[in-house]
Amino acid sequence: MSVAEAAGRWDEGTRSVLPGPGSDAPATEYVRALDRGLAVVRAFDAQHPRRSLSEVARAVGLAPATARRLLHTLQALDYVRTDGLVWWLRPRLLELGQAYLATTTVWDVVRERLTRLAGDVRETSSAGVLEGDDVLYVVRVPYRRIMSMNVEVGTRIPAFASSMGRVLLAALDADALEATLARADLRPITPHTVSSVTALRDLVTEVREQGWCLMEQELEAGIQCVAAPVHDASGRVVAAVTVSTHTTRVRPGELRDRLLPALLEAAADIDEDLRRRG
Amino acid sequence: MSVAEAAGRWDEGTRSVLPGPGSDAPATEYVRALDRGLAVVRAFDAQHPRRSLSEVARAVGLAPATARRLLHTLQALDYVRTDGLVWWLRPRLLELGQAYLATTTVWDVVRERLTRLAGDVRETSSAGVLEGDDVLYVVRVPYRRIMSMNVEVGTRIPAFASSMGRVLLAALDADALEATLARADLRPITPHTVSSVTALRDLVTEVREQGWCLMEQELEAGIQCVAAPVHDASGRVVAAVTVSTHTTRVRPGELRDRLLPALLEAAADIDEDLRRRG
Repeated sequence: MSVAEAAGRWDEGTRSVLPGPGSDAPATEYVRALDRGLAVVRAFDAQHPRRSLSEVARAVGLAPATARRLLHTLQALDYVRTDGLVWWLRPRLLELGQAYLATTTVWDVVRERLTRLAGDVRETSSAGVLEGDDVLYVVRVPYRRIMSMNVEVGTRIPAFASSMGRVLLAALDADALEATLARADLRPITPHTVSSVTALRDLVTEVREQGWCLMEQELEAGIQCVAAPVHDASGRVVAAVTVSTHTTRVRPGELRDRLLPALLEAAADIDEDLRRRG
Repeated sequence: MSVAEAAGRWDEGTRSVLPGPGSDAPATEYVRALDRGLAVVRAFDAQHPRRSLSEVARAVGLAPATARRLLHTLQALDYVRTDGLVWWLRPRLLELGQAYLATTTVWDVVRERLTRLAGDVRETSSAGVLEGDDVLYVVRVPYRRIMSMNVEVGTRIPAFASSMGRVLLAALDADALEATLARADLRPITPHTVSSVTALRDLVTEVREQGWCLMEQELEAGIQCVAAPVHDASGRVVAAVTVSTHTTRVRPGELRDRLLPALLEAAADIDEDLRRRG
């Protein structure tokens, strides 16, 4: 199963298109039109890049008239476009993610250090955060060798089967970790995926003690990676950083001997930068 | 003026926070709550990463009760969070931009080639599209040397003062070009910025004839870049690609002698890939 497929499978399980009000929002405080409009955007994906009005309405579970009003509004705001038959998404949607990145200074520090790291070790480097039971990629610095994992900023992968995920799970308190392991869909993704709650609990404990995670081919055949946590000025884990490579590219032991020390140095530099910025 | 400042200045002029229904949306078809909810997201930026409810309401021009309902809905959807005093954006917003990227296959091709190019020439490479009077960055492959231009995917820069922008303006028909030059805010950004309509029209014509644009320090002091168009299977310009570097890093003439040929080769490769994919 590829990362994209894993992400797709994951989404199916954890994300309903119309989530409805969460416990934080009293029903009278909930604006359904906003929720539905964002669900219309999420109705488009790699498998459905162009959809008719009736397909969008069906995907989101709305009456066609409602879906049409939402699409027309998104069109006026330049987030979607139509040729009269089908609708598609527009690049302006990237601005909404950029608004998040611009408001969170930690990512400038992380990106700068990971850019240097990717150049030094000549491998792809990334950073991510825990978002529900997934890791969400926030920074991605590709190196020139093209990875089979074609993931982009904003992509989700299952936390339990990724090195960044195990690092982030290791930062949870015991209750939150148990809740995640109990709730998450732990079906194996490759023949190598560790997927029993007991084994995962042990691996996460090991990661917490040693301060890093090394993973081979559990998320995608041929891909191996190391990950480590980064901390804000108060010492709280705010993200995981990782270097990933292909098994055919580095000799056995090289991941641990060459890539891990470089990653840990970058993580320590990030921690120090964040401490200095307060 | 930095790129961020230029982008900020630009936004001020061209983007009202609540744009209201465009000509494509009959008033009865317009869903104000969706529009307002997205405006609430856009009310956060690098200068305002954390805002109180009343600050958000003021920035978007809404009654506090309306802003509160929108924020609570965005919180239930995991796009914002609050500590009870101030609100901030959440990484899940990155998924909305990712939805756009996942639905547009051209960016896979562009990213793959630009990753190779950035490694070959050891400089940062990017791709962008015209969005109104701006260029919106869609792909960004940083090289290990850190650029002073800290731009990310989703960032806008004024088209008239960027090499990608001039390449994209050169692909417009005469009427659209004149309309853009008449409408855009052409105030110079550095002492080098060409900003008269007549001079810009000549430069754009030159770019159209030669098929590329070389620019020195017009968008930011010390930054020089080359850009070229890429075309879909039908021959239409779908994006511009660029390599940027610092004046202190490459000797005079190197931009044209070394970086331009590499960029043009990458652009030709992208065109061929897109042709093959149909």
